[in-house]
Amino acid sequence: MAKKAGKRTIIFENRPSVVSYGSIVGKKEHEGPLAGEFDTYTTDSFFGENSFEKAESKLQKTAVNIALEKKKLKTDDIDAVFAGDLLNQCIGSSFGIREMGIPFIGLYGACSTMALSTALASLFVDCGAAKRTLAVTSSHFCSAERQYRFPLNYGSQRTPTAQWTVTGSGALIVESGGDGPYINAAAFGEIEDYGITDTNNMGAAMAPAAASTLIHYLRDTNTTPEDYDIIFTGDLGYTGTQALYELCDREKVDIRCRHSDCGIIIFDREKQDVHSGGSGCGCSAVVLASYIMHRFENKELKNILFMSTGALMSPTSSFQGESIPAIAHLLNIKSE
Amino acid sequence: MAKKAGKRTIIFENRPSVVSYGSIVGKKEHEGPLAGEFDTYTTDSFFGENSFEKAESKLQKTAVNIALEKKKLKTDDIDAVFAGDLLNQCIGSSFGIREMGIPFIGLYGACSTMALSTALASLFVDCGAAKRTLAVTSSHFCSAERQYRFPLNYGSQRTPTAQWTVTGSGALIVESGGDGPYINAAAFGEIEDYGITDTNNMGAAMAPAAASTLIHYLRDTNTTPEDYDIIFTGDLGYTGTQALYELCDREKVDIRCRHSDCGIIIFDREKQDVHSGGSGCGCSAVVLASYIMHRFENKELKNILFMSTGALMSPTSSFQGESIPAIAHLLNIKSE
Repeated sequence: MAKKAGKRTIIFENRPSVVSYGSIVGKKEHEGPLAGEFDTYTTDSFFGENSFEKAESKLQKTAVNIALEKKKLKTDDIDAVFAGDLLNQCIGSSFGIREMGIPFIGLYGACSTMALSTALASLFVDCGAAKRTLAVTSSHFCSAERQYRFPLNYGSQRTPTAQWTVTGSGALIVESGGDGPYINAAAFGEIEDYGITDTNNMGAAMAPAAASTLIHYLRDTNTTPEDYDIIFTGDLGYTGTQALYELCDREKVDIRCRHSDCGIIIFDREKQDVHSGGSGCGCSAVVLASYIMHRFENKELKNILFMSTGALMSPTSSFQGESIPAIAHLLNIKSE
Repeated sequence: MAKKAGKRTIIFENRPSVVSYGSIVGKKEHEGPLAGEFDTYTTDSFFGENSFEKAESKLQKTAVNIALEKKKLKTDDIDAVFAGDLLNQCIGSSFGIREMGIPFIGLYGACSTMALSTALASLFVDCGAAKRTLAVTSSHFCSAERQYRFPLNYGSQRTPTAQWTVTGSGALIVESGGDGPYINAAAFGEIEDYGITDTNNMGAAMAPAAASTLIHYLRDTNTTPEDYDIIFTGDLGYTGTQALYELCDREKVDIRCRHSDCGIIIFDREKQDVHSGGSGCGCSAVVLASYIMHRFENKELKNILFMSTGALMSPTSSFQGESIPAIAHLLNIKSE
């Protein structure tokens, strides 16, 4: 049984543990500060395929296969896969996973998908609905740019608040009662919409969702930021992070000395010209499935919050003058 | 605890029950054979909004509100909402649900979404992760046509195998241990892809997924079609239904005398010119949240299988020459 704490938080009781993980990134991510953390990389935007979308599917497939191989598992050993991505109709996932013969639960949470998929993967093993599950997501700079913004060839100038979609995919395998770091709790977020309409400032649109989920979680569990080694956000970037700090201040919660953002740490701001930082479903996914897991292994981390944030608009809704609804899902990951 | 049966089937142990439901449809559905079943309808394709997409969001909101009002519940009484739709980035759901303040789990299963959302909503209440959950999905003929096929004004001719996207939304509220018909078991499907590339023949693309999930479920539970009052499929239509019968025949399973398809029963083939039948996430959703629930209430039905099927391609994947991967998720709904 899972246990509810407050309105949003679910405490797991059977230690759904990360028993394996895999990550793959693109050229730019491999040139960034976390280069040494990822399992593999490709310098080819097409990854040997003939479209960016097919390349993205292959990224997911590769991340899943790496995670399986590390533990010498086969697809048949997985009871359910939880996957999603940014592409229309989530084709990154459906085409990435289609040959694996694993029961497939398709998700759409935009850049919040890694926390969403891992939370559900954990719940399934925790409650006995599955023995072993897989959570995976991806994004690709080229497929995202041309879908959400402009054709790449257009060469349009980016605004200072714009973020750079990470090319990459991260996958986790979850089992109950394993030795690995385990998902102690999860909190599913509500949709927050502060009326922001600038699609080049996703960080600001997503910050209210991050603040809401975090504040609810801290209240539900009666904990403070100091109780955690680090509070990771997915891809708020520099602009969104400032907004998050200010929103938390209003609730008298200061997270500055505990906070890190996957979108900030994945690129070098000075050298890589990514403006406000990295973004995309793949951003928090590849950082979780490499950097963060490695730090649990070497005992640098023992108790963290991991919160991916997603902007739930589409180009159509933006063209129709709509604001950007956002969401944040949270995981509490522990090792002891 | 949920109990696994075989590879795909999950048996619930705490009777996750449908305690309320709501449905709304468009003009054409209201002119069809099930007109008297739906809670309400609109004859305006825009539903008072200024775009088809906003109209679709309003359909979802309306279905949810009807389901809440029937039981005098408020949004605050719901611990989690499971929602998805066909629109790019699932904006039908995110914009439909955004003001409700309910933890939101976004799904993408194309037309399989109603079975997917209800299965997860059931699992959450079954395992104690939530007290009361909501499953909702929608589709809209006009928003789907212009996204997937042609601008409506183009007036292109439809092929005989084409299906008609249902305009409507259905919502269910699930609680454990209620009196209502309850979700006894769920089976999550694998992605099946038989290489069909004709996007005007979704029924044929989806039939292999339906056959696979059904056959696995029957084996997992050691049951036969005769054990169920009816086996509902979501929207295979006339073409897909024939394909399903043939695929089941190969496994020596004959479902003809037990089968019904929501896409077939929602329209009148002679009078309504819908070619192969209805389709869309909303199709099985509105039939489940009206016709099927009513027949549980008047005891005509006591034990059914409900299986929504989804085609997981996008216009982009089709333009790139890809085939159509499909999926089917199944619910076993019982009343005794």
